[in-house]
Amino acid sequence: MCELLGMNCFTPTDICFSFTGFVKRGGITDEHTDGWGISFYEDHGLRTFLDTLPAARSKLAAVVREYPIKSLHVLAHIRKANIGAVALRNTQPFCREMWGRYWSYIHNGDLYDYREKAYSYYTPVGDTDSEAAFCAILNAVKDQFPAGDCTNQQLLEVLQQQADYLSQYGIFNAMLSDGRSMFVYKTTHLSAITRAHPFAVAQLKDESVTIDFTQVTQSTDKVTVIATHPLTTNERWIDLPCNKMLLLQGGAIVNL
Amino acid sequence: MCELLGMNCFTPTDICFSFTGFVKRGGITDEHTDGWGISFYEDHGLRTFLDTLPAARSKLAAVVREYPIKSLHVLAHIRKANIGAVALRNTQPFCREMWGRYWSYIHNGDLYDYREKAYSYYTPVGDTDSEAAFCAILNAVKDQFPAGDCTNQQLLEVLQQQADYLSQYGIFNAMLSDGRSMFVYKTTHLSAITRAHPFAVAQLKDESVTIDFTQVTQSTDKVTVIATHPLTTNERWIDLPCNKMLLLQGGAIVNL
Repeated sequence: MCELLGMNCFTPTDICFSFTGFVKRGGITDEHTDGWGISFYEDHGLRTFLDTLPAARSKLAAVVREYPIKSLHVLAHIRKANIGAVALRNTQPFCREMWGRYWSYIHNGDLYDYREKAYSYYTPVGDTDSEAAFCAILNAVKDQFPAGDCTNQQLLEVLQQQADYLSQYGIFNAMLSDGRSMFVYKTTHLSAITRAHPFAVAQLKDESVTIDFTQVTQSTDKVTVIATHPLTTNERWIDLPCNKMLLLQGGAIVNL
Repeated sequence: MCELLGMNCFTPTDICFSFTGFVKRGGITDEHTDGWGISFYEDHGLRTFLDTLPAARSKLAAVVREYPIKSLHVLAHIRKANIGAVALRNTQPFCREMWGRYWSYIHNGDLYDYREKAYSYYTPVGDTDSEAAFCAILNAVKDQFPAGDCTNQQLLEVLQQQADYLSQYGIFNAMLSDGRSMFVYKTTHLSAITRAHPFAVAQLKDESVTIDFTQVTQSTDKVTVIATHPLTTNERWIDLPCNKMLLLQGGAIVNL
């Protein structure tokens, strides 16, 4: 299994605090040692850092942890390989371009016996069930809306159908973003916290690090962080509902 | 204008030496200060580092310079923006997936008045002529070979046609890879050096760094480095032929 981390913000925010706790689970406080990755949207651009080393011992992860990239949408993944070798081609987040936008995606869970017969637009490069599912989702969306002329509600409906279908094969906790919205689906584990004014102090669970958000925020800031398991000890994380495709925009879950 | 760097190898090799000289041109020995990027193939996987800061002063570039990622195909780019804002979405290398393989691409030159009317499979995310040309190339290749069942010679012919067409609009120095081969096209500036046994000492042009390749190579190693302008002072770089799509495999130019 793997662990997921996602962040959706109203104003560009760095993920250094959450990522610091998250990477500890890649070999120190947990066993997800088969690589890691993180994707940051900056306007329409996307940059992704990938490594096959354990996150907790990766020199690159240390750099990312201290490099305050400000972003509205961030997806991160630490891997415990079950299906597919430990290799860069199997390291998430995966990314494809659709409708002139970069789509990035992370998945936790195993979809046993899941395989597509054919791929129309998007084809997996590696050999994970996760990437096969990602390609199937995008192919379904593009088949339905070739030019991308759909509302968020229409998009949400196709994504919901696809996630419902995939979750018949096993565990499907996933997050997806196109740099404008974030989509989140849970079958077993995903928790969320929304931080907004008035801000407070937060204490990481996986490392003895505390942050006083009142010192590093403005009153208009709003951030929702979603993780496989809560990352802090003194905040009230909510357990997300199962089998519902959630839409995040502006730092909040829109359709909870 | 921008500068390009490409490397094609017989055995996985790091690019630290060449990259060290190359990044100096991103703000110290030359004026290419509008961002940089580098893509490494590791088997079928691809990882790309992008930054909008000048390469010579980028903390990320410093990390990459000292992180010996071994790869068979590397593409790097430092940008001097003419068309398109300084932004992550306009930072090269660009990447798309075709036929279940990642294709990456770098371009130097300005294609004035070049614009595609419509895009079939691949659509630009940013607003550079370079990315528009990349999408047009891939669309043409995929239109001709939807399932990727083509020989290298057939692929080379389509790429040659596309590059000839694009170069009518201006300067088109470009490199392209799918992680199996590298393709290179020059209209104005691209030089190459092939290093093989017996290896010798090389001296960078842009920084006082020398490397004794006899100490860090094996007799079977073979590497071709291609750059906008030669990166070393004591080696015999060749000037590539104009308007010919070159194929690189196994550390050598196959069809020179």
